[in-house]
Amino acid sequence: MTNPLPANATIGILGGGQLGRMLSVAASRLGLKTHIFEPSANPPAADVAHTVTTAPYEDEAALTAFANSVDVITYEFENIPTSALDILESIKPVHPNRRALATSQDRITEKEFLSGLGLTVAPFAAVDTLDDLRAAVDKIGLPAILKTRRFGYDGKGQARIMTPDDVEPAFEAVAGAPSVLEGFVDFSHEVSIIGARGVAGDISCYDPGENVHKDGILDTTTVPANLRPAQRTDAVLLAANILNSLDYVGVMGVELFVTKDGLIVNEIAPRVHNSGHWTQNGCAVDQFEQHIRAVAGYALGDGKRHSDVIMENLIGDDVERIPALAKDGSVAIHMYGKADVKKGRKMGHVNRITGPAK
Amino acid sequence: MTNPLPANATIGILGGGQLGRMLSVAASRLGLKTHIFEPSANPPAADVAHTVTTAPYEDEAALTAFANSVDVITYEFENIPTSALDILESIKPVHPNRRALATSQDRITEKEFLSGLGLTVAPFAAVDTLDDLRAAVDKIGLPAILKTRRFGYDGKGQARIMTPDDVEPAFEAVAGAPSVLEGFVDFSHEVSIIGARGVAGDISCYDPGENVHKDGILDTTTVPANLRPAQRTDAVLLAANILNSLDYVGVMGVELFVTKDGLIVNEIAPRVHNSGHWTQNGCAVDQFEQHIRAVAGYALGDGKRHSDVIMENLIGDDVERIPALAKDGSVAIHMYGKADVKKGRKMGHVNRITGPAK
Repeated sequence: MTNPLPANATIGILGGGQLGRMLSVAASRLGLKTHIFEPSANPPAADVAHTVTTAPYEDEAALTAFANSVDVITYEFENIPTSALDILESIKPVHPNRRALATSQDRITEKEFLSGLGLTVAPFAAVDTLDDLRAAVDKIGLPAILKTRRFGYDGKGQARIMTPDDVEPAFEAVAGAPSVLEGFVDFSHEVSIIGARGVAGDISCYDPGENVHKDGILDTTTVPANLRPAQRTDAVLLAANILNSLDYVGVMGVELFVTKDGLIVNEIAPRVHNSGHWTQNGCAVDQFEQHIRAVAGYALGDGKRHSDVIMENLIGDDVERIPALAKDGSVAIHMYGKADVKKGRKMGHVNRITGPAK
Repeated sequence: MTNPLPANATIGILGGGQLGRMLSVAASRLGLKTHIFEPSANPPAADVAHTVTTAPYEDEAALTAFANSVDVITYEFENIPTSALDILESIKPVHPNRRALATSQDRITEKEFLSGLGLTVAPFAAVDTLDDLRAAVDKIGLPAILKTRRFGYDGKGQARIMTPDDVEPAFEAVAGAPSVLEGFVDFSHEVSIIGARGVAGDISCYDPGENVHKDGILDTTTVPANLRPAQRTDAVLLAANILNSLDYVGVMGVELFVTKDGLIVNEIAPRVHNSGHWTQNGCAVDQFEQHIRAVAGYALGDGKRHSDVIMENLIGDDVERIPALAKDGSVAIHMYGKADVKKGRKMGHVNRITGPAK
């Protein structure tokens, strides 16, 4: 696809969670419709999408009909089965591309890709067996963290190994799934940079945000992050390096550890990212619209920030704080329309505008 | 209705134009669904609404089913037939209420109501016949403007009378519809204030915006408006007076002429208003969310503005400027998803953030 989509074109989105929901809203601002493909019924994105297909990723007829009904396809999560991608790609352009997906789906592929670009990652070793794990611990040292190669998110599929006694329980925790042992990184804080690349190769980045996690889940992102000017430059350059190397189209989230020796890449996400939600109330063009602009072949926003923001996730019964938060004129509420409140479930987030951009 | 709506409740909206579209988006941010009732097919709001009913306002069965499927009913335009309102009100709460609708539907009822509150309006006289018009011109003087009592918007149903020769053509222009002759007001500029009132009687106003029209249609709204502090206070007090007098729930737009003798009320709109679109990029809580908060029984936002904004409507082929506007990092685009570009048709608007709130 080289021409921009016409007004009223339809963006197909794989996945109907909160990211698909906010992508749909952003598409509407550009006069574009969305069609959500999602296996589970009544997903959050259905409330604000023009069309919804409820079908599993194994339903070839549904995938084909979906692809034929849209102008371009994107996704809100990276674990799309290859077989589904084969069908979709044969009918319509899919952005970001297959290589970006394959790279981010597997922690070892990802780390090898990033290392190959000259970027620094945590020390790592592949682990398939308990013997592999013992050898990896000998090589990397402790403490370390064992993570499944695929399907991990929000701290799931992970086990910390602080002492040799933790080795066997950690291996049992990942239940024999192909895994990677990562050495601990001595970092002062975590930041992420949300970058975007358009079809013409143009690149735009938002100012990095500083992330604080709680119980393995993102709790807050504060913008601007605590970074020296040279570190900000490094963050932009490494994001651009990754985006260009993948011939990427769309928004990408890049998580970075800040260490005394420089920035270490933790992981990349080939999609809009929780740590970029602050852009909804800090920028004229937020990350969701930026992603839609990229996949639709439109000009990217320049990433300009008008306000400083603290984004806070509302997890589980944090939603009970909504009535109090609603009374604060500096707080913007973003709920996801999820029917049931569950422990650890992302129910929404708030963006607190803390002042004009500094 | 005194209790706030629960999460996942549904707001019924009469009318599926751009205002309904942006109300739907705002509802989604609060975790609420929307159901649009609209006679014409594929309206702009359908792209972002959970449910759409396509039926005329005379379809009693459709109205009944619609009302039964939602938790509260509101609207994006004031010309709702009384017969439809009778059915809807018998099933679910309708906000703003019938009196607000009736008052704003008829220019004479409106002016008499406003005068009764002690507010200043332009001199006016009812006109049903050509003789009425001649008598009204004698009483009010020229120049003056003849407007139909009902169904006027964006300069439609209006005729200027500059000289006695214009009297007969003006009467023909309104085609015998019940009308009102309004005297010209010697005003320096027009502003509008967007006020909101909650179910508990709480009131919140945004800072007034300054409006410039082109060809009878709103062209730009600039915030802050050029007003002295005492005029700002007057604007808030008169808006509160109107809202309280109508026992109003929801957002109202109040158009004001600024004269050397004070503020004159031009007209009121019992709904979100084009001159309030700037709030989408100037405030954490915009007018659309404020309206949804009010009708859902939630706490109102306090009207706080974080940025100064110039809103510009995109009329007809103004949409051709979108690619250029998209490259400006201070510009937020809001398209309405209308299929056909027509002369004089509101296709979208842009909000240009001009700096931190002054």
